[in-house]
Amino acid sequence: MNREHLIQLIKRKRSYLCVGLDSDIVKIPQHLMGTDDPVFEFNKQIIQSTIQFTVAYKPNLAFYEARGLAGMQSLYKTMQFLEQYRDECFVIADAKRGDIGNTSAQYAHAFFDKQSSGFEFDAITVAPYMGEDSVGPFLKFDGKWVVILALTSNKGANDFQLTVDHDNTKLFENVLSTSSHWGTSENTMYVVGATRAEMLTAIRKIVPDHFLLVPGVGAQGGSLEEVAKYGLNADCGLLVNASRSIIFASSQPDFALKAGEEAHRMQQQMELTLKIKGII
Amino acid sequence: MNREHLIQLIKRKRSYLCVGLDSDIVKIPQHLMGTDDPVFEFNKQIIQSTIQFTVAYKPNLAFYEARGLAGMQSLYKTMQFLEQYRDECFVIADAKRGDIGNTSAQYAHAFFDKQSSGFEFDAITVAPYMGEDSVGPFLKFDGKWVVILALTSNKGANDFQLTVDHDNTKLFENVLSTSSHWGTSENTMYVVGATRAEMLTAIRKIVPDHFLLVPGVGAQGGSLEEVAKYGLNADCGLLVNASRSIIFASSQPDFALKAGEEAHRMQQQMELTLKIKGII
Repeated sequence: MNREHLIQLIKRKRSYLCVGLDSDIVKIPQHLMGTDDPVFEFNKQIIQSTIQFTVAYKPNLAFYEARGLAGMQSLYKTMQFLEQYRDECFVIADAKRGDIGNTSAQYAHAFFDKQSSGFEFDAITVAPYMGEDSVGPFLKFDGKWVVILALTSNKGANDFQLTVDHDNTKLFENVLSTSSHWGTSENTMYVVGATRAEMLTAIRKIVPDHFLLVPGVGAQGGSLEEVAKYGLNADCGLLVNASRSIIFASSQPDFALKAGEEAHRMQQQMELTLKIKGII
Repeated sequence: MNREHLIQLIKRKRSYLCVGLDSDIVKIPQHLMGTDDPVFEFNKQIIQSTIQFTVAYKPNLAFYEARGLAGMQSLYKTMQFLEQYRDECFVIADAKRGDIGNTSAQYAHAFFDKQSSGFEFDAITVAPYMGEDSVGPFLKFDGKWVVILALTSNKGANDFQLTVDHDNTKLFENVLSTSSHWGTSENTMYVVGATRAEMLTAIRKIVPDHFLLVPGVGAQGGSLEEVAKYGLNADCGLLVNASRSIIFASSQPDFALKAGEEAHRMQQQMELTLKIKGII
């Protein structure tokens, strides 16, 4: 999905919500545990009940890999199920990959090349530590995106991302300004945690046009209002992710209904922020 | 496998060679392509012909994930085959993972918890960008190791890893000194590229006791002699990886024999360096 399509989708659905499919099998509602593939059944119902409020889904690879081959099978079925909706949602592999060039090229095939791996996502999250040649191979796939970690939502972000260099530039600022030249705002996004909303103004000075994928609203405590205030640009430029607060809104048979309600609640908040900024 | 066991293994085999199983299906010898699982068949023969010269194997996850579920099945079979040798080799998942705490915990189950995922490696490579809570969950598994990226062998290492902070410390030095307190030299190793051997002296000042996993000898052009000279410590403290130069030493039916010969050649070089340093 290209940038123009994504922006149209946001305007049509009046939402920049991304639902994180962190589908932890120990949290799947009990009544699904007798089905053939409880995680797939869960994802299917979550998708059906949230698709009208959501512009993106973000399966978190760790939760599938933790179950080995069975988990990857659940992810595969989820991606197959999503095919009917591919014009209606952007799909991000939250995989945090990144390696030397010839290895990153293999990861690109793993996540973007259906013929090779059976999987085709629109985007993948990547770690910047290994530099340009670790990200470049993903950018060679037309219409595909990298989402580079810039400033993450966790406590550990303080360890290195906020380190100040001899020019008084923080590492995450250096990552933004350096890597923004590797691709363009048509194929590169950045992860910026909602728990760091106060830094969005500085971030927007470095990457005014890029989309930002913002996790940390919901279970991690970030504020959507703050994120919208400092993060929205003329094209919206945000995908705000919520995972646990939506998909585990209820652990009962009404889980999909409750997930839909929570997604709707967030969509309405987002619609308001889009109107305030004059984007819709 | 604990540190003491690994050191004994190195002394017994007179080798600190790690063979990288970057088993790219397009490079698998033609005569294997008719077998049920060519990548597994290839890995099996590579392991059989190199095990006496090798203390570690390092499957590179990208090459398996690129083939989707079929690739993960090849990796699964490879790990099953390796079970008979688990006292004789250390097995590293070269996966470069790292995410917020609850997600890294899932990755730890994916790579260390056989009951959960079917996979149990001794170690996993992790990216440090997200800080302590992204690495911590892996350290909770007794007898398991993290191998943290410090200074990588690729050109992109220059982009951020060599950035100098206001204290005149390079980022990779900060990663070494900071993260060395997250665990101990009993459960933490570092990736240091052989193409940066001149920096090993500085690195050994920061982490004198830790094992270093050194890729970049062989196809990437690093020198084993230089790595040994500056990197060996009293317990050896090195695992030097070669992938393509061993596993693809020949593309003919003699590939396993040639891989064994190349592994033997490197083992002999390593034995010499261990003797020079008085380690054996």
